[in-house]
Amino acid sequence: MKENTSVSPLAGRSIVSFDDLTLDDIQTIFETADAISADRQAYFGKASGKIVATLFYEPSTRTRLSFEAAMQRLGGGVISTSDVKNSSVVKGESLADTVRVVGAYGDVIVIRHPLDGAAKLAAEYSPVPVINAGDGGHEHPTQTLCDLYTLREHHGTLKGLNVALCGDLQHGRTVHSLAFALARFGANIIFVPGDGNEIPAYVLRRLERNYHAHIRRERLGTLSALFDESASGDESATVNAIYITPSEPHQLAMSSIEGTTVEFRVGYGESLSLYVTRRQTERGSAMPTGGRYPALNAKSLRGSQFKNISILHPLPRIDELSPDVDNDPRSLYFRQAAIGIPIRMSLLWHVLGLGDETAVVSKQPYTQEVLGLLYSHSGFDCSNETCVTNQERLFASPQFEVVMNGDYKLRCLHCDRETDGTYAGNIESRFYYPSELLDRFLPPVSPEHVRFFASPEDAESAGFKRASDKWDSYQSRPNDNGKHWVDMVSGRTQ
Amino acid sequence: MKENTSVSPLAGRSIVSFDDLTLDDIQTIFETADAISADRQAYFGKASGKIVATLFYEPSTRTRLSFEAAMQRLGGGVISTSDVKNSSVVKGESLADTVRVVGAYGDVIVIRHPLDGAAKLAAEYSPVPVINAGDGGHEHPTQTLCDLYTLREHHGTLKGLNVALCGDLQHGRTVHSLAFALARFGANIIFVPGDGNEIPAYVLRRLERNYHAHIRRERLGTLSALFDESASGDESATVNAIYITPSEPHQLAMSSIEGTTVEFRVGYGESLSLYVTRRQTERGSAMPTGGRYPALNAKSLRGSQFKNISILHPLPRIDELSPDVDNDPRSLYFRQAAIGIPIRMSLLWHVLGLGDETAVVSKQPYTQEVLGLLYSHSGFDCSNETCVTNQERLFASPQFEVVMNGDYKLRCLHCDRETDGTYAGNIESRFYYPSELLDRFLPPVSPEHVRFFASPEDAESAGFKRASDKWDSYQSRPNDNGKHWVDMVSGRTQ
Amino acid sequence: MKENTSVSPLAGRSIVSFDDLTLDDIQTIFETADAISADRQAYFGKASGKIVATLFYEPSTRTRLSFEAAMQRLGGGVISTSDVKNSSVVKGESLADTVRVVGAYGDVIVIRHPLDGAAKLAAEYSPVPVINAGDGGHEHPTQTLCDLYTLREHHGTLKGLNVALCGDLQHGRTVHSLAFALARFGANIIFVPGDGNEIPAYVLRRLERNYHAHIRRERLGTLSALFDESASGDESATVNAIYITPSEPHQLAMSSIEGTTVEFRVGYGESLSLYVTRRQTERGSAMPTGGRYPALNAKSLRGSQFKNISILHPLPRIDELSPDVDNDPRSLYFRQAAIGIPIRMSLLWHVLGLGDETAVVSKQPYTQEVLGLLYSHSGFDCSNETCVTNQERLFASPQFEVVMNGDYKLRCLHCDRETDGTYAGNIESRFYYPSELLDRFLPPVSPEHVRFFASPEDAESAGFKRASDKWDSYQSRPNDNGKHWVDMVSGRTQ
Repeated sequence: MKENTSVSPLAGRSIVSFDDLTLDDIQTIFETADAISADRQAYFGKASGKIVATLFYEPSTRTRLSFEAAMQRLGGGVISTSDVKNSSVVKGESLADTVRVVGAYGDVIVIRHPLDGAAKLAAEYSPVPVINAGDGGHEHPTQTLCDLYTLREHHGTLKGLNVALCGDLQHGRTVHSLAFALARFGANIIFVPGDGNEIPAYVLRRLERNYHAHIRRERLGTLSALFDESASGDESATVNAIYITPSEPHQLAMSSIEGTTVEFRVGYGESLSLYVTRRQTERGSAMPTGGRYPALNAKSLRGSQFKNISILHPLPRIDELSPDVDNDPRSLYFRQAAIGIPIRMSLLWHVLGLGDETAVVSKQPYTQEVLGLLYSHSGFDCSNETCVTNQERLFASPQFEVVMNGDYKLRCLHCDRETDGTYAGNIESRFYYPSELLDRFLPPVSPEHVRFFASPEDAESAGFKRASDKWDSYQSRPNDNGKHWVDMVSGRTQ
Repeated sequence: MKENTSVSPLAGRSIVSFDDLTLDDIQTIFETADAISADRQAYFGKASGKIVATLFYEPSTRTRLSFEAAMQRLGGGVISTSDVKNSSVVKGESLADTVRVVGAYGDVIVIRHPLDGAAKLAAEYSPVPVINAGDGGHEHPTQTLCDLYTLREHHGTLKGLNVALCGDLQHGRTVHSLAFALARFGANIIFVPGDGNEIPAYVLRRLERNYHAHIRRERLGTLSALFDESASGDESATVNAIYITPSEPHQLAMSSIEGTTVEFRVGYGESLSLYVTRRQTERGSAMPTGGRYPALNAKSLRGSQFKNISILHPLPRIDELSPDVDNDPRSLYFRQAAIGIPIRMSLLWHVLGLGDETAVVSKQPYTQEVLGLLYSHSGFDCSNETCVTNQERLFASPQFEVVMNGDYKLRCLHCDRETDGTYAGNIESRFYYPSELLDRFLPPVSPEHVRFFASPEDAESAGFKRASDKWDSYQSRPNDNGKHWVDMVSGRTQ
Repeated sequence: MKENTSVSPLAGRSIVSFDDLTLDDIQTIFETADAISADRQAYFGKASGKIVATLFYEPSTRTRLSFEAAMQRLGGGVISTSDVKNSSVVKGESLADTVRVVGAYGDVIVIRHPLDGAAKLAAEYSPVPVINAGDGGHEHPTQTLCDLYTLREHHGTLKGLNVALCGDLQHGRTVHSLAFALARFGANIIFVPGDGNEIPAYVLRRLERNYHAHIRRERLGTLSALFDESASGDESATVNAIYITPSEPHQLAMSSIEGTTVEFRVGYGESLSLYVTRRQTERGSAMPTGGRYPALNAKSLRGSQFKNISILHPLPRIDELSPDVDNDPRSLYFRQAAIGIPIRMSLLWHVLGLGDETAVVSKQPYTQEVLGLLYSHSGFDCSNETCVTNQERLFASPQFEVVMNGDYKLRCLHCDRETDGTYAGNIESRFYYPSELLDRFLPPVSPEHVRFFASPEDAESAGFKRASDKWDSYQSRPNDNGKHWVDMVSGRTQ
């Protein structure tokens, strides 16, 4: 066990996003989890004198308990707040202060928080590593580790595996994290949303942009059994695997991604995992009248085409997964929950650097890999109301990555949400443009010289001038590699 | 210490009801508790690496803390939810799912739940042993262990000991469990209820049926001091030890149990334990206007007739037990609370099989000894609204024991409540009868062929026919050992 | 390390008030904290098998978590109730019962409670030592230990150090405890209250009486920078360091303390600690319209006169301490929080007597040093509504120290609040007097013979007679050492 006798490459690191983990990291975590499963008692006592602090701003049973059990199975201690809302926060304490204080008490902080991006903010301020146990509708990386481990254990490999993500694809943090992870491991993903709970466009764009996923709209007859038969007919015999409503403006841009090459059609008897999720009503999940929601029961899985499937669910469930499949050997969701102990033991083992007891492990600064340009300006906020940067304004510095999917958008580095419809200005020329024209002038302009605005009014009230009254004609012109607009940026409108 | 060097007969077992414990089991638990009290430090570390999960769906301080302290004094770990209502249950999770997940985290589950029978349901689904720490108004077996241990320690024996159970005998789960336990150990029980909080008839019937207790209505002058003197007079000089109001129909049947042989009259100076309980207002305990409730203070216990008494109380108390007896040597209630640590250490020790560290202890299936016939049918529910089978319908299978006290009733195996006034049908003959006539036809009919109904309408809407319009005459006829009705059951009404 | 190899003089003792600690005790606690900081791992395991019970009747994150982390870093266990309000207290349990039960589960109790004096009541009933983690607006001695340690560590000494206590001086328990502690160590204290949150008169009187502090009203130009500049002008250029509003009657008496000798004027560049506190809105802290509250930010501390200051804050903060000084080397508040671990480890170490593992440590009775006469009578209650003696009437015995500051007052031994305007009677002569005349007759009368009344009506309804209708003339007479009134007390009015 190489990873057990030296300081882990994960030692001192915060795990905010699943993307913080390299493929090697994940492999390492899985291998230690295997070793722990094989001889759990051998790991007991290794965390003696260490303490995990669980800071839960939202109530939770399973995630908190599994982290606390994991730490104690390593022999470590636990300090726990199961509902921080009822404690110091009443007195108005910021997250930044809380983690700085609690980070002086414990050796690692496990945090769950209702705000998107809260774990990143915590990692920025905490003196000890932070593990994200769910931040709003954003990420839940240790759940993703459990999901992947369970899939790999059952199906042997993730590469080429068909995984249908079913249910509330809009609010489910586990679904977003899992989608990115599956894309990294080369699995095929099929989105089967409940009506009104479609996968957000920014998630699809990130899949395409960062993981080079090919995305297309598809009808899958095989999966139609997941829906209530009472609504059957010609229409319902198939499933809209990626449900795109053209009338929603921000999804119009996605029409360009139709026609790509990969098809997710699942053949009869082909290996397929159904990952079912509940409606996240506590995050505003709602279903239109007459809407359909994918639900699974023994009857719906009776066909021979479902012979090689597996059924996963992050739990808790409501009514989308019937107890009548609980004892079905294809049902992996209780295994998926149980694996949380060795997985989280493994993660704590590595983050605390327990492999080499003589090593002094200190926290590594939290940095996130950013592919595009960085943008940060005090006047520009994330458009996501439940982003931590909009709630903890004294301590959070909104930062954005400039991403290019059709037009330019700003991806918030805390919550990953993209801010649409912005206007961009050059602070030297004082001209502003619609952000979709940004690719025509940006390259030669350093990010420090760009400023974004939500509307022309914002731009003009900040003293910027409309770059041109001939936008329409420019937009229709073929892209000349930004040459013309670059000129404009430098102030020469001619 | 024989029980410490081999696998305990309690290893892997769930403790749902006090009845799950044999007299040998109880003896074993008490002996280990003695050994622990004698040398507590010797037991520290024996549970290293083991974890108890405390699942408290109702808030509680003392029971939860004593289990958690007990586990830690054995060197084990604790994962705890002090108010599950505020966590996953909000998301609509079933008890069956919760225990299956949490049972993958901990080695034993301690559960408190507001629904009667919830601990049994948990034991049915949990992959690890479940210990009932109070399920609704049903049972609280570890409290009973503490009660018995304290009584035995103080009075030397339980056999023949007079124990007056005072206060809320209707809702107090500790009182019901204790009454059954005392009956098993041959103690005399005196029920001294607060007005309107009388002992339920089904408890009395079970005492009579299962423990062969002799029950009679009694006036006890000795105990009248427990009641407020302001209400004195000739009437109040005595206590209605079993308070039977003939106007309550369901208690009419009990009139037949008057005139039995054992008298609970307590002589002056005779050994007597007063077990005082509070009004369980959170379970609907109410007192009629002008009602009386047994309360105890220094003055009421001044007489020489109370020389050899002991005072117990499961705590917390309200005003039924005055602090002015706290320092009285006859007061055992703080001892009774303190003994919770060695008792619960002992129980955890045995259930976890810590006596033999090399043994692999796996959970034993939870089965309950049923003396009578078993009945279970999907159309028939327990009449107790707060029974877990009526709340967790997806996972609980209502099961009943057919019991015969006067007439036939169905005792719910989850909550022990008896369902009255039912009608029974033979699924082959399709005739139905009032259940009080069941003894006339049942023996030759196997339980699979019986179906119960709450009303004639239910029976008829299920396609059953009224067995006879001459019920009245049949009922007045001498019991002919069911011969006539057996014929009827087989379809021959003549 | 002498204190580590023998039973500590603190072993078995309850820590209710900072005054319970001698200067030697404090020195001992600090030295062990130093030793722990130097080699934390050496102390791990010393508390194996011991358990701390944290009873928090008010939500709290930092204090509870730091105690729980401290105990676990010693290898001990924790049983915890993070919000007792939601548990047994719902069933109406008294604090006295709770600590007697929980004290049978744990080896030491750490309590936080909303009522003033609750920790003292707990210490009176608990079978194990009690550590006060904050009782209402009264005391918080372990916070004070952290404060003093941080100040001493940074400034080298407390003697002669200027410490400005800023903010809510009325409700802040940390401020009162710290003020007394600073006075004991010979520091100079400057009270810089928010408007409407002035330091209570009884705190000032106790400082003067018990710690021989010299108190005066002062204007301090140096500190004016703490206040919002928008309210500047000639008036605001200075700070009313002890803010006395002559129109408040109970403060009129304090005018006599003006003109004493010590001046708190802080010279430019002189060593000064600013101890900033938040508004305790949950205790009724309010600010009059247009009121000013001392707040601190980078700009306000820019001057060279603040070169040698330190900034402390007990946290959590609201807006009185700007994050822009967080990284300022003069900011000690995160250090102040972090030091809570070794300080509380040290305190638990000593109270549990861990230095000598073979010693049997038993709880010492809780007694408080009382300088004046003791007074206790069932008819006389503490005038502080949130004093525990007014809420836990069945268990708390109100006791008072007769103190003399101008006139006689009764200091409640539970909450330290002084009761004003009382009348005193001699139970033998049955005459009563205004309490300000008490010094004229008290010395020869033993406390058992004195009874206090809130009003003449109370006295007369209790059967006491007005001592004289010539009080006015007696009051204006020069004090004749009580000779005349002593005669009167003995019944001879002439």
